Amino acid sequence: MEVKVVKHILEANERIAYQNRNLFDDRGIVVVNLMGSPGAGKTTLLERSIEALKESTPMAVIEGDITSSYDAERIAAHAIPTVQINTGGACHLDGNMVRDALPELALDGVRLLVVENVGNLVCPAEFNIGEHHKAMIISTTEGDDKPGKYPLMFQVSHVLILNKIDLLPHLSFDMERFKEEARKVNPKLTVIPISCTTGEGLETWFRWLEERTRGKA
Amino acid sequence: MEVKVVKHILEANERIAYQNRNLFDDRGIVVVNLMGSPGAGKTTLLERSIEALKESTPMAVIEGDITSSYDAERIAAHAIPTVQINTGGACHLDGNMVRDALPELALDGVRLLVVENVGNLVCPAEFNIGEHHKAMIISTTEGDDKPGKYPLMFQVSHVLILNKIDLLPHLSFDMERFKEEARKVNPKLTVIPISCTTGEGLETWFRWLEERTRGKA
Repeated sequence: MEVKVVKHILEANERIAYQNRNLFDDRGIVVVNLMGSPGAGKTTLLERSIEALKESTPMAVIEGDITSSYDAERIAAHAIPTVQINTGGACHLDGNMVRDALPELALDGVRLLVVENVGNLVCPAEFNIGEHHKAMIISTTEGDDKPGKYPLMFQVSHVLILNKIDLLPHLSFDMERFKEEARKVNPKLTVIPISCTTGEGLETWFRWLEERTRGKA
Repeated sequence: MEVKVVKHILEANERIAYQNRNLFDDRGIVVVNLMGSPGAGKTTLLERSIEALKESTPMAVIEGDITSSYDAERIAAHAIPTVQINTGGACHLDGNMVRDALPELALDGVRLLVVENVGNLVCPAEFNIGEHHKAMIISTTEGDDKPGKYPLMFQVSHVLILNKIDLLPHLSFDMERFKEEARKVNPKLTVIPISCTTGEGLETWFRWLEERTRGKA
């Protein structure tokens, strides 16, 4: 019974996600669904990305959180259109929540919309929201064994940002093991190691974003 | 509709959790449900705890993971009864999964059973498994703003282990803010700062465990 209900929920979500995607395509907006555990560095990466790209690539952000508006306040301080979704307990965003948030955003002229999902390495991987690209972020402090333990997120993602590489000297993180595990679950996954603290690797990520956005002018 | 189904699932889970709890009480076993994000340090803390306590406090472990048996292999190497639950996608353990795992464990003489939940700061907080104590672990690298953003886990937990304090010199983590935020969502929460790398604070955690177990001789 439970399985049937879950299947029904997922199918209903797919329909709404498809409508969202059509709406984004009509408006020429590229949408990135940014996912990762609490504290992986989603909001900080977004802040760095906005500062680097907002002149060349008009951006907007949807912030997904269970409760609070901490993240939306951080993003709004960078003077781009931002809206907070509070899921009220739910562990992921779905197509419906994103659709309902869109009228709150000034999307005219926006070329790139980043949706920061609820901090969770599991559930957001199951729900499309109408995005063009799924980006996941994980930090070195989370350990090199995670691809094999949480495979779905690695399987569905198009790009993996490996954050906090500045902390590597203090950790027992094996970069080769991590990359090999990630390749095993998703051979096509692009891995971009970065540090939001030192800035290392961020240019590669900015270029990745720019390339996806430029194709949609 | 969805809400009603979720309510039904939670109620069914409560009944099974209650039966598990009775079974644990009958056998004089204290059960701790250990929860936290991927990479917070659950398995490493467990390894340290087993090494420190296994002579004085006979232990057993249930390892919960979506897939893989990495963690159960690490724990089994410490020569205590261990069983792996693979949820096959589900983002948390429930009472039913724990009940089904019990016959696989040699529980004779065991005084402390630790159940390591799936790595997730959200969903495991909603499901009782029949435990006596909920313990959560979070690492300093996850940020000082998490209690306000993921309040349920902090509200339901009896003890909060703050791991990776050895990394504090390299982070912008504000300990006072973190403790204040945690107190705001749960004034009764015991906070134990530790480092599994340096060993700092671990004695306090071992004593916490021993005190809970001793009362149940």
